[in-house]
Amino acid sequence: MFGIIPRETGFFDLMDEAAAVLVSAAEAYAGLAGDYGHREQYVRKIRQLEHEGDEIAHRTLEKLDQTFLTPFDREDIQALMMRMDDVIDEIDAAAKRLTLYQITDLTGWFVKQTEVLYRSSRLVSEAVNRLRNLKRPNGIQDRLVEIHRLENMGDDNNHAAVAELYCSGSDPILVMKWKEIYDLTERAIDRCEDIANAIEAILLKNT
Amino acid sequence: MFGIIPRETGFFDLMDEAAAVLVSAAEAYAGLAGDYGHREQYVRKIRQLEHEGDEIAHRTLEKLDQTFLTPFDREDIQALMMRMDDVIDEIDAAAKRLTLYQITDLTGWFVKQTEVLYRSSRLVSEAVNRLRNLKRPNGIQDRLVEIHRLENMGDDNNHAAVAELYCSGSDPILVMKWKEIYDLTERAIDRCEDIANAIEAILLKNT
Amino acid sequence: MFGIIPRETGFFDLMDEAAAVLVSAAEAYAGLAGDYGHREQYVRKIRQLEHEGDEIAHRTLEKLDQTFLTPFDREDIQALMMRMDDVIDEIDAAAKRLTLYQITDLTGWFVKQTEVLYRSSRLVSEAVNRLRNLKRPNGIQDRLVEIHRLENMGDDNNHAAVAELYCSGSDPILVMKWKEIYDLTERAIDRCEDIANAIEAILLKNT
Repeated sequence: MFGIIPRETGFFDLMDEAAAVLVSAAEAYAGLAGDYGHREQYVRKIRQLEHEGDEIAHRTLEKLDQTFLTPFDREDIQALMMRMDDVIDEIDAAAKRLTLYQITDLTGWFVKQTEVLYRSSRLVSEAVNRLRNLKRPNGIQDRLVEIHRLENMGDDNNHAAVAELYCSGSDPILVMKWKEIYDLTERAIDRCEDIANAIEAILLKNT
Repeated sequence: MFGIIPRETGFFDLMDEAAAVLVSAAEAYAGLAGDYGHREQYVRKIRQLEHEGDEIAHRTLEKLDQTFLTPFDREDIQALMMRMDDVIDEIDAAAKRLTLYQITDLTGWFVKQTEVLYRSSRLVSEAVNRLRNLKRPNGIQDRLVEIHRLENMGDDNNHAAVAELYCSGSDPILVMKWKEIYDLTERAIDRCEDIANAIEAILLKNT
Repeated sequence: MFGIIPRETGFFDLMDEAAAVLVSAAEAYAGLAGDYGHREQYVRKIRQLEHEGDEIAHRTLEKLDQTFLTPFDREDIQALMMRMDDVIDEIDAAAKRLTLYQITDLTGWFVKQTEVLYRSSRLVSEAVNRLRNLKRPNGIQDRLVEIHRLENMGDDNNHAAVAELYCSGSDPILVMKWKEIYDLTERAIDRCEDIANAIEAILLKNT
């Protein structure tokens, strides 16, 4: 319909940048889980990535209001950017609590969940990168299916983790702390699925 | 304005289907509360209804993108379907926790709240069914008012339930489990009110 | 573009009204914190303001559907009104819990947070009042920056408050009660930032 007018490609760069920041945050969170002695530096790193994510989201909003023709509906671009930002916010909130609540020992479930989140974030990024080229078969759908699968796995893991926590006979205050950290981590995984849904909405309109 | 072109009636079928699934889920949840010895089968039933609800929501999204003239604004149809899905998600989350947390005895407040939720879900369904015919007086408004009243009742019940729970002298871990189940159940009732608000937005534009 | 047709000014009155109700609710909440012996009257006052806020939001929705030309995009007006309503809902929920949970003594962090919230609500109101006149420099941006700063402060305060609570050696049930009240209060402060974001979206399109 608007084939002659070149579509704005800067949005793809912004989306890729935001996805890369998301992957870095999830990577730092899994890094913290695997190297808990240096937790402070991972928490700082995540905090800094959270600011970068905000800044990219803000630049996108400005660009949306200055651009007449956008590659997808502007509310879909905005939703996608906001959902990516949401994941980073959850990671930041969870990571901060580990130091704030003076958690000294991690649980196996926690480590497992940070890995699920990291895998899901990479699939998100791969799907976002492929939005540039929707005409040819490009494997986006496979990635979305896998993100949904990881969300289910995260959900099951979280249920098992909380059930175990409640049976553990631990101090109730420690139980409360872990409940909150588990729930925030699971929510980060859930929100990767929200991104998958936002991408799916774009696919439905543009393929 | 578009009087000659037949408006797509398939959307009404999809909305009615989604509402019926919602009622079935709320009915199964109240069933679980009244027949707790067979709780596993109700939890499975709710799980299955949750999948059906997802599938209907997905079909609606596809249909919205293939249809030029929709009976209401497309974002209003989408919001209505998503809100119905939200209620089922809350019911599913709450029901699963009862078995996962190995709750052996139910409380009177819990039973009462599942009944409030079931009544509200039936009113939602009756209101949704009446969206097909907005020209004649059809009692939608009365149902919306009643949904708001039930939301207030659910809120009051939840406050009383939690206050009682906190005074009960129970084991703190058991208190945490019930707090979460109560809050999820109340949220399901709240979300019926979100559906009522979505319907009201449609009425404002179409009557 | 539509310079000749007078833009509807009633919306500005409604937005100012809603902002004034929000400030009154935050003021009553800080009042409760400073005069806890008379808490019941503040809780009632907040409850009443919550109803007023609902009623203004409802009138705005009706007006939006009857008005052809609105001063800003209709979804932006609606989002702004809903976000103001959200803050009042959080205040109402938090205030009610203080009496319901029979909290007898307040904490220093709680008092501090009600003050942060009250300051943020006044900045929100000042920013909303200035939406009438976007052509001249009017100090909206300074206020939005300050709201963001207060949100960060509220976040830091909440973390410190919860960390202290968890170290306090208090009864776990009392810890749960305060955790919920702290989180609701912080969420009210967060939602003032959501209003700032809604205002920023309006500025981007209209300046």
